[in-house]
Amino acid sequence: MKFCSHCGHTVAFEIPMGDDRPRHLCHDCGAIHYVNPRVIVGVVPYLGDQILLCKRAIEPRLGLWTLPAGFMENGESSEEGALRECWEEALARVRTDDLYCVYDIPHINQVYLIYRGELTDTDFGPGPESLEVELFHEDEIPWDDMAFPIMTETIQHYFADRKEGIFKLHRGVIERKL
Amino acid sequence: MKFCSHCGHTVAFEIPMGDDRPRHLCHDCGAIHYVNPRVIVGVVPYLGDQILLCKRAIEPRLGLWTLPAGFMENGESSEEGALRECWEEALARVRTDDLYCVYDIPHINQVYLIYRGELTDTDFGPGPESLEVELFHEDEIPWDDMAFPIMTETIQHYFADRKEGIFKLHRGVIERKL
Repeated sequence: MKFCSHCGHTVAFEIPMGDDRPRHLCHDCGAIHYVNPRVIVGVVPYLGDQILLCKRAIEPRLGLWTLPAGFMENGESSEEGALRECWEEALARVRTDDLYCVYDIPHINQVYLIYRGELTDTDFGPGPESLEVELFHEDEIPWDDMAFPIMTETIQHYFADRKEGIFKLHRGVIERKL
Repeated sequence: MKFCSHCGHTVAFEIPMGDDRPRHLCHDCGAIHYVNPRVIVGVVPYLGDQILLCKRAIEPRLGLWTLPAGFMENGESSEEGALRECWEEALARVRTDDLYCVYDIPHINQVYLIYRGELTDTDFGPGPESLEVELFHEDEIPWDDMAFPIMTETIQHYFADRKEGIFKLHRGVIERKL
């Protein structure tokens, strides 16, 4: 950030009075520009003992597989956002059961809220951000071609919980790989 | 938002190619400025059968009571953020038990992640954003002087769950009052 989005003046990056960390602030109009973590909402769409995955048509990780998920938008609830992403990426509709995973990824300033939801039918297909959309049994999951570790972990939890017969909320912090 | 924070040019507010909703975008440098929901992190600090509340020293709702909570910052996990807010607002330290409430407030673009945590000692007091910090038994809670409905609901859940002896995750969407 170089310019104030309110008045167009150059911004400084310094600690505002009464604060404890540097922010982009405008000495001309006084605006302080806070930058906060973003929420990614997603869903584990399942049907029987299969789950739905999308092969990414966009960067990052083009060509690799993931659960339908994306940035939460203003004006929607996290569950509405998860359903929207499932529709946009997989043209699929689900009935959500419950919030399933809450993950923090502090080094990239992201919070993940992932729901579990049963597909209402098998009428799905790739949206503009997907190359393919497919149902997978556990032993068919393309583990070596998964786009994001957080989604791999979510899917592992899903199949483990399914075997146990109890779906519990999973929570975790994904640290930067050293 | 009137000016591009990257290049200082005036921004337009229109639907970018391939998108489905208007964004602030710069026709000069091509930047699209996304605005997403913000996460508020907080904690229910308890000790025995009491909980800790803060009387707000700042607007909005100056002079009313709330749980320690505030905007999650970049670079921290939601749990770290909740502990930080508890320290900043109540000079109190807690050992967090678990994530307790996840609320969406779509009309103000906020997601709340509220933890439960036992105070490690009674060495607390008002931080710069609080006028008073006090422990309350259930029958002493200033219900009529609470700052935010979401915090009132969280506290009601807390005491109800405490009676039942089981703390479960609570989830909800707070709609705009009509």
